[in-house]
Amino acid sequence: MRIGILGAGQLGSMLAWAGNPLGLDFSFYDVAPSGSANLLGQFFFKRDLQEQALVQFVASADLFTYGFETMPIEVAEYVAAYKRFFPSLQSLRTSQNRIEEKKLFNMLNIPHVPYRLASSDTELRVALQSLGLPAVVKNATLSYERQGECVIHTDAEIETAWSRMSGSTVIIEPQVPYIRDLSIVAVRGQHGEMAFYPVAENYYDNGVLQYSIAPAADIVSEVQQQIQQFASSILTYLNHVGALTLELLDTEQGILANKLISRVHNSGHWTLDGAETNQFENHLRAILGYPLGSTEAYRISGMVNLIGQEGMRETLFGLPSAHLHLYRKEPRPGQKLGHVNITASTYEELIEHLRHMEPYLSANAPILQPNSSRRLSQFNSSSDEPHQPQSTEWV
Amino acid sequence: MRIGILGAGQLGSMLAWAGNPLGLDFSFYDVAPSGSANLLGQFFFKRDLQEQALVQFVASADLFTYGFETMPIEVAEYVAAYKRFFPSLQSLRTSQNRIEEKKLFNMLNIPHVPYRLASSDTELRVALQSLGLPAVVKNATLSYERQGECVIHTDAEIETAWSRMSGSTVIIEPQVPYIRDLSIVAVRGQHGEMAFYPVAENYYDNGVLQYSIAPAADIVSEVQQQIQQFASSILTYLNHVGALTLELLDTEQGILANKLISRVHNSGHWTLDGAETNQFENHLRAILGYPLGSTEAYRISGMVNLIGQEGMRETLFGLPSAHLHLYRKEPRPGQKLGHVNITASTYEELIEHLRHMEPYLSANAPILQPNSSRRLSQFNSSSDEPHQPQSTEWV
Repeated sequence: MRIGILGAGQLGSMLAWAGNPLGLDFSFYDVAPSGSANLLGQFFFKRDLQEQALVQFVASADLFTYGFETMPIEVAEYVAAYKRFFPSLQSLRTSQNRIEEKKLFNMLNIPHVPYRLASSDTELRVALQSLGLPAVVKNATLSYERQGECVIHTDAEIETAWSRMSGSTVIIEPQVPYIRDLSIVAVRGQHGEMAFYPVAENYYDNGVLQYSIAPAADIVSEVQQQIQQFASSILTYLNHVGALTLELLDTEQGILANKLISRVHNSGHWTLDGAETNQFENHLRAILGYPLGSTEAYRISGMVNLIGQEGMRETLFGLPSAHLHLYRKEPRPGQKLGHVNITASTYEELIEHLRHMEPYLSANAPILQPNSSRRLSQFNSSSDEPHQPQSTEWV
Repeated sequence: MRIGILGAGQLGSMLAWAGNPLGLDFSFYDVAPSGSANLLGQFFFKRDLQEQALVQFVASADLFTYGFETMPIEVAEYVAAYKRFFPSLQSLRTSQNRIEEKKLFNMLNIPHVPYRLASSDTELRVALQSLGLPAVVKNATLSYERQGECVIHTDAEIETAWSRMSGSTVIIEPQVPYIRDLSIVAVRGQHGEMAFYPVAENYYDNGVLQYSIAPAADIVSEVQQQIQQFASSILTYLNHVGALTLELLDTEQGILANKLISRVHNSGHWTLDGAETNQFENHLRAILGYPLGSTEAYRISGMVNLIGQEGMRETLFGLPSAHLHLYRKEPRPGQKLGHVNITASTYEELIEHLRHMEPYLSANAPILQPNSSRRLSQFNSSSDEPHQPQSTEWV
């Protein structure tokens, strides 16, 4: 059985690593080679093969999936027209479009960050009057060219903001005060069975995940259940087969859904060393129609991204229970080059070990006691500049 | 950093799988390609490259180790003459020679199965008179051609047994009554630091490992410590860097050392899913001079070899907490094609899950309650025929 993966970055790579001991073979399609691509499989790169790349890729495998969701939808549609393709195109379309995502949250009665839509600078002004400033303006679609989003603080910034947006319709959200970022990775099999990983707490800087702690501290069973219920309705409605990630905000008014990503996710990398079955294997089990593996976390995990630097192995290995996962990419600033999973028996122990990782973290994402009382943060407050939103990170 | 591995079977393969996320590259040397060889790395096969194979292999990497110990010692000596080679040649020589192994146990005061040596059929008769029948006769060296061992029940069998033995000196052991087979994987770093995995209990049929349970049930702390002490003196004496396995017999007279294998081992495969750091990663950390990872077992593990059949994935994945590891070999009778790790919180739960694996096990190795009282077995009683001893299995 050969599985074709759209995307030859670290997520595609880790899917293949999880699948190899299961006896699976892999093919990859991407725009151009990346450092992560030195793994088992056949490669089809658009840059080299032009139109033939996709044709050859589709011919190469039996079953298809993806490791990033920001490819042009036509690419996925082409593959799905010829071969079995999971998760569903509907999941992919929803994950690619913020308006569709909000409509889905509305329809399924999932509490979410409020929003307005605008198709002109006049409509943008009206929306901002209704929501108040500051507010975040985002393109509805996450395009290939990575146009992003920006924060508007004053009326004077509206014109510039509008000119920066490329889409015909933008989405506007108020800056919701929130306590912390959460996420859940959920998996649905071909027969509708579902499995949910414990909710993770995530620490971002400028939209880029710095580190996660899972299971998140102070998540009472009711909240885990509520979040699973959100994920469950989404999975079922979309007839989603495979892994899906839901990003959430923990606010004083309760949990708000924030973003849907129709794939395995960086905030689930801790599962490689901290859960009975990792997210990559469970995604593969789902799309292959096999029973899902246990999602139990037998320890507390910290996952720290190695951004722009791989870190000194001597130091990393000196940490108790540290597990290094390098992506074999050429180091450059801002590039995710790998991650380190650290496991512990208590949050106190975990935090103590994570503090040794501070040299690898952005100064804007210090290691916090996960169960300490925490100031309310402003949604997207860490950046006033237009920046790359998380979900347009290909990998 | 590229690591050269002698042996392209599943042990070499799993070393590479463990090393890839650490950013390591690999080369392999073997007699001929095997199915497990479809992994990251460069390959140098003697069958194809003749004399050039070893020369090119040595040139290809910076640091060398091995995934089997039954290669001609000259191959290892050649590599070690040019490049850093771990574990030490002395470890390898001891592991290859049963007389050296016994001498080491003697010298380090490690209790072991008694033995006599014989260099002629007359000496063999004298030895058997002293030890009594039945007894096991083994070649001192584990040769490339896989000459084995045989059990002598009566005087009439002595002549035939002697003619079957190829070595100039044979080793003779009485059939010691024992309760169970145990083993420990121990690791020693370049600075003398050591780490020990929990002792495993092993179930063989005809010298071939069928399944292991780790940590072994009913191993009191003193026994674990005693076994660690045996391994520790061996590691230190041999100036061994890397993983080493010690097979032991649990007898009514106490623990007896039985066999030394100077590498990672099949009875340590459970560490892939049941220990904080698996044996392959710890071997690599050791030979690279990095700190060793935690050897803690956070669950109870069962490891079942898939021999001659890969098993139905649907069935295997239906077992709770089952983890499949296939070696990608062409199926043939008696071939180890993969293994399944199953984790559990209690021995009762583990045994219950392992019973589902009975279709994959030899009828001579039924699933037993590990803590039930057990009849005394006869050492090597499962086979009266000359057979492949465990340690000449290359992988």
